[in-house]
Amino acid sequence: MTRPEITHDVRITDTTLRDGSHAMAHQFTEQQVRDTVRALDRAGVEVVEVSHGDGVGGSSFNYGFSLTDEMTLIAAAREEARQAKIAVLLVPGIGTADDLRRAHDAGAEMVRVATHCTEADVSPQHFGVARELGMETVGFLMMAHRTSPENLAKQARIMVDAGCQTPYVTDSAGALMMHEARARFEALVAEVGDEAWVGYHGHQNVSLGVANSVIAYESGVRYIDGSLCALGAGSGNSPTEVLGAVFDRLGIETGLDVSALLDAAEDVVRPYLHRWPKMDRNAIVQGWAGVYSSFLLHAERAGERYKVPPHEILRRCGELGYVGGQEDMIIDVAIGLAAERDRAGAAVS
Amino acid sequence: MTRPEITHDVRITDTTLRDGSHAMAHQFTEQQVRDTVRALDRAGVEVVEVSHGDGVGGSSFNYGFSLTDEMTLIAAAREEARQAKIAVLLVPGIGTADDLRRAHDAGAEMVRVATHCTEADVSPQHFGVARELGMETVGFLMMAHRTSPENLAKQARIMVDAGCQTPYVTDSAGALMMHEARARFEALVAEVGDEAWVGYHGHQNVSLGVANSVIAYESGVRYIDGSLCALGAGSGNSPTEVLGAVFDRLGIETGLDVSALLDAAEDVVRPYLHRWPKMDRNAIVQGWAGVYSSFLLHAERAGERYKVPPHEILRRCGELGYVGGQEDMIIDVAIGLAAERDRAGAAVS
Repeated sequence: MTRPEITHDVRITDTTLRDGSHAMAHQFTEQQVRDTVRALDRAGVEVVEVSHGDGVGGSSFNYGFSLTDEMTLIAAAREEARQAKIAVLLVPGIGTADDLRRAHDAGAEMVRVATHCTEADVSPQHFGVARELGMETVGFLMMAHRTSPENLAKQARIMVDAGCQTPYVTDSAGALMMHEARARFEALVAEVGDEAWVGYHGHQNVSLGVANSVIAYESGVRYIDGSLCALGAGSGNSPTEVLGAVFDRLGIETGLDVSALLDAAEDVVRPYLHRWPKMDRNAIVQGWAGVYSSFLLHAERAGERYKVPPHEILRRCGELGYVGGQEDMIIDVAIGLAAERDRAGAAVS
Repeated sequence: MTRPEITHDVRITDTTLRDGSHAMAHQFTEQQVRDTVRALDRAGVEVVEVSHGDGVGGSSFNYGFSLTDEMTLIAAAREEARQAKIAVLLVPGIGTADDLRRAHDAGAEMVRVATHCTEADVSPQHFGVARELGMETVGFLMMAHRTSPENLAKQARIMVDAGCQTPYVTDSAGALMMHEARARFEALVAEVGDEAWVGYHGHQNVSLGVANSVIAYESGVRYIDGSLCALGAGSGNSPTEVLGAVFDRLGIETGLDVSALLDAAEDVVRPYLHRWPKMDRNAIVQGWAGVYSSFLLHAERAGERYKVPPHEILRRCGELGYVGGQEDMIIDVAIGLAAERDRAGAAVS
């Protein structure tokens, strides 16, 4: 297997239209997708990810229904992109090989197969299908703070052996401190760097996504994710426009037109934001306690329903070690906290 | 001269009520100041800065008038603080020795004397007055990206020789890349570390304030600034509540109660925010082009008046190398850009 050729020092993937789907409660319109892809493509972004926040097939009761069929969005994105490659996320257990084939037919040329950081062994079948289809392959090792650098590297090895061209350190909770991120980047580059690139996907829960992106580059990572206006789960991703400005300042070549990116964020994405992702209490608690970023809106809804502060729900989820795929447990946590509160109230009165 | 004794690994100064004054257009009420100081004090913050954004005496036509007399705010802060020391900013040329005496009488126990990074020689008189008054002394070397680490260290030496106990690397534009910040921290610690502490004041224009705070600690810096909800000029400061969470994760002792800080940000400051400081186009351009953070609202007002995009005004200010104190030039830049636009329009029509 060979690494894909890359043309710049860093290959930026923008995930506004996939990770940002969480922050938009999966309500993207076709027009928003077209406008965003066009702006990203013109600004020199080489990979644009488009799908439900939880990947192809994610539109469901458990993860939230999409407003627009994602195959329609992928096809629209493909039409708008002159040079950018369209990518989709696929979480085994949520999306199927069939979803992947449909995404490929709609125009997706890259798949990012995402598993929990210790469960790479559920990914090989999907990498196999993707390689048969001739797609470029990325592997997401999610919640990468939850295992050691050594073990993460072993999981990356499983993915690469299965046909993954670029395994990613995926900091789903925005919880990786800089030295923790560096150790994971170095471990993956040492393990698979001869035959694969290594990637980094960060969140801004404690505002270290951009800093970790710089450290990623220093450590040999060449695929880095961002999203416009930081639009993504939790407090959002490393903003693509900030990555552009910082790499420009550092003289690291990305092929990005920073002014065009700043305009894309401000003039295309900002007008349709439900809310600007920010480091509020809920988001910081996710980074502090290491909670899956896409739990945010679920916890807010459960908190409203059961009259429990969402940040307490999120902190409990961190203590209990819940990971992506356990969204249904958030309701149980809220019910438990409400019961604790009621018992405490009864004891006082 | 001796360094002040410090009780924790890092001494956090919160500047919500000073740098945040810029973001609030200097409209703080006494009640907001009381509530914020009480919350910070209870959360273990050791130094709380209170004054006009441009320092004592800043309330003026050029810098914006304060809603509440700052001596009233300082006295209120002093009343609310059980353990925290109240600090004021003083910019020579804006504030006078007389303003400092009045601030001291109102309850300020620390002064932070701020000069452009190459103009420490305007500070000695004020340090002298402060030491006579028995105040703790900090020196701000503003726009620290605009001079070399070696020269910045020489400027810190001038301040320390004049009675400054803690010179600061002050990244007023949020423009310092991590390696640039580290070089400055190391240079100052090497130059004055035997007799003074070194401090760091960061802005989040490209979201490196928190990362640079960690690097500061690694480099021997022991005074670090933050503000709740990042409330400060430009895209705001390193959020105090995030600094608390990150240092907690790193096992670096700050004496902060992180949960109390998260509540202070969410329940005390957030309700009175005019807007949540964010990395929008204007703020990012400031970090990218190295523009003084407090120029933001001035540029927005000038942009509205002369129908010129504020980010273009800010970028031009960066090209022209304007620094704090040259706020009046922002109008000239806006007029110049408007004239250029009109000439271009005339040529086309």
